[in-house]
Amino acid sequence: MNISVIPTAQQAQGIDFNGQTAVVIDVLRATTVITTALDNGAREVFPVKTVEEAQSLYASCDNALLGGERKALKIEGFDLGNSPLEYKKKTVEDKTLILTTTNGTNAINIIKGANEVILACFRNEEAVARILRNDITIVCAGTEGCFSLDDGLCAGMMIELLKQQNKVEMDDLGLLLNRFYNENKNNLFGALSDCHHLKRLFALGFYDDIKFSLETNCVETVPVVKDGKIVRK
Amino acid sequence: MNISVIPTAQQAQGIDFNGQTAVVIDVLRATTVITTALDNGAREVFPVKTVEEAQSLYASCDNALLGGERKALKIEGFDLGNSPLEYKKKTVEDKTLILTTTNGTNAINIIKGANEVILACFRNEEAVARILRNDITIVCAGTEGCFSLDDGLCAGMMIELLKQQNKVEMDDLGLLLNRFYNENKNNLFGALSDCHHLKRLFALGFYDDIKFSLETNCVETVPVVKDGKIVRK
Repeated sequence: MNISVIPTAQQAQGIDFNGQTAVVIDVLRATTVITTALDNGAREVFPVKTVEEAQSLYASCDNALLGGERKALKIEGFDLGNSPLEYKKKTVEDKTLILTTTNGTNAINIIKGANEVILACFRNEEAVARILRNDITIVCAGTEGCFSLDDGLCAGMMIELLKQQNKVEMDDLGLLLNRFYNENKNNLFGALSDCHHLKRLFALGFYDDIKFSLETNCVETVPVVKDGKIVRK
Repeated sequence: MNISVIPTAQQAQGIDFNGQTAVVIDVLRATTVITTALDNGAREVFPVKTVEEAQSLYASCDNALLGGERKALKIEGFDLGNSPLEYKKKTVEDKTLILTTTNGTNAINIIKGANEVILACFRNEEAVARILRNDITIVCAGTEGCFSLDDGLCAGMMIELLKQQNKVEMDDLGLLLNRFYNENKNNLFGALSDCHHLKRLFALGFYDDIKFSLETNCVETVPVVKDGKIVRK
């Protein structure tokens, strides 16, 4: 199994994913939010680029919710922000979710031509690893064009899980991140203590979001992109 | 001092370097070759993209040498390949060097609008760190669009040197690479034992090039880009 790791959504833009399996990671918080929403019974999630696009799609949908963030905060007039803790069963069950975030939903939309696009986060990492069979490209969403350590640590853990069930070849970024994960697997929080995106969310008061997003292997839900929307595999 | 690290030349393409100081690293082997050539008395180095461009520039230059590689090997009809060991004083002194390589010379040309573009490698790292005063963006050249661990390790060492003389703020990739360097500073060779580009050069018989390129702080020469060519600062 060959594993490549792309450090940012921006870098994924130039890549032809034709026929490949792509695994998108945006730990803080988009892929954690989407995994949580689908795990709590949301029917589907539309990842959209702009606030206007989200509103226009919302107008044409029944039983939908608008969610997402700009500058980490809930968008005016939206039902939900980008905290996974908001996406509870009583709120999202059987709903269509329309989500727009700065990094994660963009990263999902940037990937063109992939055979399969799967979403991963710490919470569903084992469930995702279990279904991966072929070569994969892990796309770390990053934060505003820059590599983000939280996504990298999650990628390093994914590689470690895949190494336990396959003979794995990985690129240099994969080697570095897998090593980083193994050196810090007993203290993920500590490994990310200097991570800029984590510190920013912490300063904004999202401590519980961070804690929730760094919990590993709590759910079996594997989100996949199908015809432009994200559903449970 | 703010330090950002760009993982590949490809990612540098989308970035506006306006007014910034960029430090380009391609340890194996372009920035090591250029540092060595200038240290051994070459007058100037033209980094060019294609073999044809190199040949055409050569035809209009006096006292010039053609150097570079494709697929790590010397280009047919060229005077020199991409081994720093070829760029000895008796060969390059007072010569104009026209160089085309797959990754490094491209990375240098990709950077647009920077206030200053400086070239670094393990051999001149202290000399480069000593002259850096303002915020910098380190561009790791990478290998064929992918992040390369040798460049990353060198970036991590550059950050460590800068930390010793400044109050440094760095992005997440800088944090990761600085940590990687500090964990491996007593065994750079070992840290790169799985690095794909290093293994490829090793398989092609370039062991001495690798050894030479991983020697730290041997020269005082700092190459800088001026009017499209590279000269000693």
